[in-house]
Amino acid sequence: MPYSDKYWQKEEVMPPKEIEELQFKRLKWVIRHAYDNVPFYRQRLKKAGVHPDDIKRREDIAKIPFTTKEHLRENYPFGLFAVPKEKIIRIHTSSGTSGKPKVVGYTRSDLENWINMVARCLYMVGVRERDVFQNMVSYTFFTGGLGFHYAAELIGAMVVPAGTGNTERQIRYMLDFGTTVIHATPSYAMHIKEVAEAMGIKPDEIGLKIGCFGAEPWSDNTRKRLEDAFGLKAYDSYGLSEMNGPGVAFECEEQNGLHIWADHYFIEIVDEEGNPAAEGEKGELVLTPLTKEALPLLRYKTGDITFIMDDECSCGRTHPKIHRILGRADDMIVVRGINVFPSQIEHVLMQIPEVGDHFQVVITRRGSLDELTVRVEVRDEIFTGELADLDKIRQKVQRELQKELGLRTNVELVEKGTLERFVGKAKRVLDLREEV
Amino acid sequence: MPYSDKYWQKEEVMPPKEIEELQFKRLKWVIRHAYDNVPFYRQRLKKAGVHPDDIKRREDIAKIPFTTKEHLRENYPFGLFAVPKEKIIRIHTSSGTSGKPKVVGYTRSDLENWINMVARCLYMVGVRERDVFQNMVSYTFFTGGLGFHYAAELIGAMVVPAGTGNTERQIRYMLDFGTTVIHATPSYAMHIKEVAEAMGIKPDEIGLKIGCFGAEPWSDNTRKRLEDAFGLKAYDSYGLSEMNGPGVAFECEEQNGLHIWADHYFIEIVDEEGNPAAEGEKGELVLTPLTKEALPLLRYKTGDITFIMDDECSCGRTHPKIHRILGRADDMIVVRGINVFPSQIEHVLMQIPEVGDHFQVVITRRGSLDELTVRVEVRDEIFTGELADLDKIRQKVQRELQKELGLRTNVELVEKGTLERFVGKAKRVLDLREEV
Ligand SMILES: [Zn+2]
Ligand SMILES: [Zn+2]
Repeated sequence: MPYSDKYWQKEEVMPPKEIEELQFKRLKWVIRHAYDNVPFYRQRLKKAGVHPDDIKRREDIAKIPFTTKEHLRENYPFGLFAVPKEKIIRIHTSSGTSGKPKVVGYTRSDLENWINMVARCLYMVGVRERDVFQNMVSYTFFTGGLGFHYAAELIGAMVVPAGTGNTERQIRYMLDFGTTVIHATPSYAMHIKEVAEAMGIKPDEIGLKIGCFGAEPWSDNTRKRLEDAFGLKAYDSYGLSEMNGPGVAFECEEQNGLHIWADHYFIEIVDEEGNPAAEGEKGELVLTPLTKEALPLLRYKTGDITFIMDDECSCGRTHPKIHRILGRADDMIVVRGINVFPSQIEHVLMQIPEVGDHFQVVITRRGSLDELTVRVEVRDEIFTGELADLDKIRQKVQRELQKELGLRTNVELVEKGTLERFVGKAKRVLDLREEV
Repeated sequence: MPYSDKYWQKEEVMPPKEIEELQFKRLKWVIRHAYDNVPFYRQRLKKAGVHPDDIKRREDIAKIPFTTKEHLRENYPFGLFAVPKEKIIRIHTSSGTSGKPKVVGYTRSDLENWINMVARCLYMVGVRERDVFQNMVSYTFFTGGLGFHYAAELIGAMVVPAGTGNTERQIRYMLDFGTTVIHATPSYAMHIKEVAEAMGIKPDEIGLKIGCFGAEPWSDNTRKRLEDAFGLKAYDSYGLSEMNGPGVAFECEEQNGLHIWADHYFIEIVDEEGNPAAEGEKGELVLTPLTKEALPLLRYKTGDITFIMDDECSCGRTHPKIHRILGRADDMIVVRGINVFPSQIEHVLMQIPEVGDHFQVVITRRGSLDELTVRVEVRDEIFTGELADLDKIRQKVQRELQKELGLRTNVELVEKGTLERFVGKAKRVLDLREEV
């Protein structure tokens, strides 16, 4: 079934020029498909004065207006679908915090493409038939669960459809079933580590080899902590339900950037005005799925901040790489006029050895001034020391944050176990400022 | 893909004689397979003085010792698997209330057989490409979720992987997505009905056509209530994870007995001593999966009480039918020496119009005497009536129970909404007698 020992599909090593040609051919197809079958797009393109036939070169994509998550919500549930209902064999939704959920649909061919893309990712980091794959994310509406489930099964690994919660049982199953690969959010993995320790089990004796972590931005320092704790290799997984789900981009064994499958997605990085970012500059990732029959979203604004890493990869794959997500445009906090991503705070904290694995960011307003307080768990052994030592750590954390963020923060050290743990996406920011 | 307009696979209408021949051929294979590849079975058969070659006629199966769920637990996790670990692509578990969980495994061929059996069931009751299938049971470890999910997807229905919980959202999705088929436990369906009413939505205006209900025994009177409430046709689904999961047996449109797929299961009904029950007599269902590579359980005692219905079915399917499950051997309550199944109580209650949809059975011991108390919700409009009316209803319920059970019970009427609701299997019996 796999193309070779190393690659799941032959498309992974297509010559770049061929990928570009295929991309452009498919781009024209998907614009035409959306125009012909989705009234929303026909009207939008007409209003923008652009016709599918006007797309003659790659650059012409800039003529097409962006699609946003608000458009998906406004057309709830099936308004942006491009095929009749009986062709759809799967629905996923993401509920979001406010308003209508985003609903996405798949034809049989969409599902096949999607699952093969996730299989490419798993195969890329070494998942094989002999592996035991414990899938510790939510199934049902969330694409992360079924997406990885189908792909690991397609490869032929022993799939343990674990879902979230009941962490002690998860750990017992890992030991009893000989689990070698896990899929989880990084924050849940941190939680598993703590629970294992409390059960008297050393995380690195569980036998895990590979960890796939996604659904929230995480830093290289967190990677190091996870790898040290479990003795595994930790890989960053990127995807979003609007682009099928997981499997859009994934780190290869180099752990230096995520290959993004350019035969299935047209990739752009744009600045805040929506203009193309300069080569190698960071900006918002904009994706156009090139093979999606059910839901052809043109120039979809992902809200994720990254940049294109323009170098050849020693793994042999020819698809471009994006840097791991720097933050979500949505998650950006503006404090006293300065833009702060929670991922920057995580990056600083996780490289300070005295700092534990959990933190919380609280934003308050005193008078007209915003205050950013970072609550940080410190390692157990620290709290047994002198008060003066604690204060030194506090000052160190504050100094490092100031260096990275250019912002003075309040730092509060708390004992291990004080802050909330998460089984899914972590919610680390508590914004207590009044709504304006 | 389907064999015809009416049947998913051609095996559904095989001449009975051919089914029997196929059954016996496969029976010999599975006994040999277990003997050759599972040390537990080799030892057990040797101890019983029986060799696979001794199985010369169907009746010879009686020489093989039974397998019980305790054997599965004792061989936790993979001790009864008959193939190497790398051939297994799926694990499910059922946690049970005490002791080790039961772990079941599947090869790729097992999964394919299983999903096609569930697809036979769904296709049999009319599920087609045009349908919207909302799967409202737990995914992950429970076989009911993924089993139905894969089958509905194979048929090509629009699958909404809903899982349990968040009932208001479930109802909104049914309306917004145009859901036509649901899969749930009967108790959760009852709960959905109540929540819809509380939202001001008439259940029969949701647009449901087909309901698949399983995972707990339920009565024909409950069927009538569900059908009246939602305006759908309600079908009984039977399965257990040790026999793949759902899809072992299922009602056809006749709603009179469940076709059990005799090309994949060898079917026996035994009495309490393990001897064959007389023709048409009720007893415990004993199943031997005939095609399962990963986990060939020989003569597995399901714990479910039923009988074989020996008549031709007008639907044209040639596979035998079992009566809907009368109760589980495990669920049987012994009160003052009399055997009572919760399903008998349900049967009585659901045919009394004044009685609501929920009840609870409480068993206590006063001195040396067991007391069985049935707490019953009555319909809203009843509680507005006279006290004397209430007492009349109470007496009526008591009388009907006495008739069915041969046992005097205490009956307590409570207001609607008093008793616990369940999203999965209902837990209706509360045994407060001290452990002996
Ligand atoms: Zn690479
Ligand atoms: Zn029939």
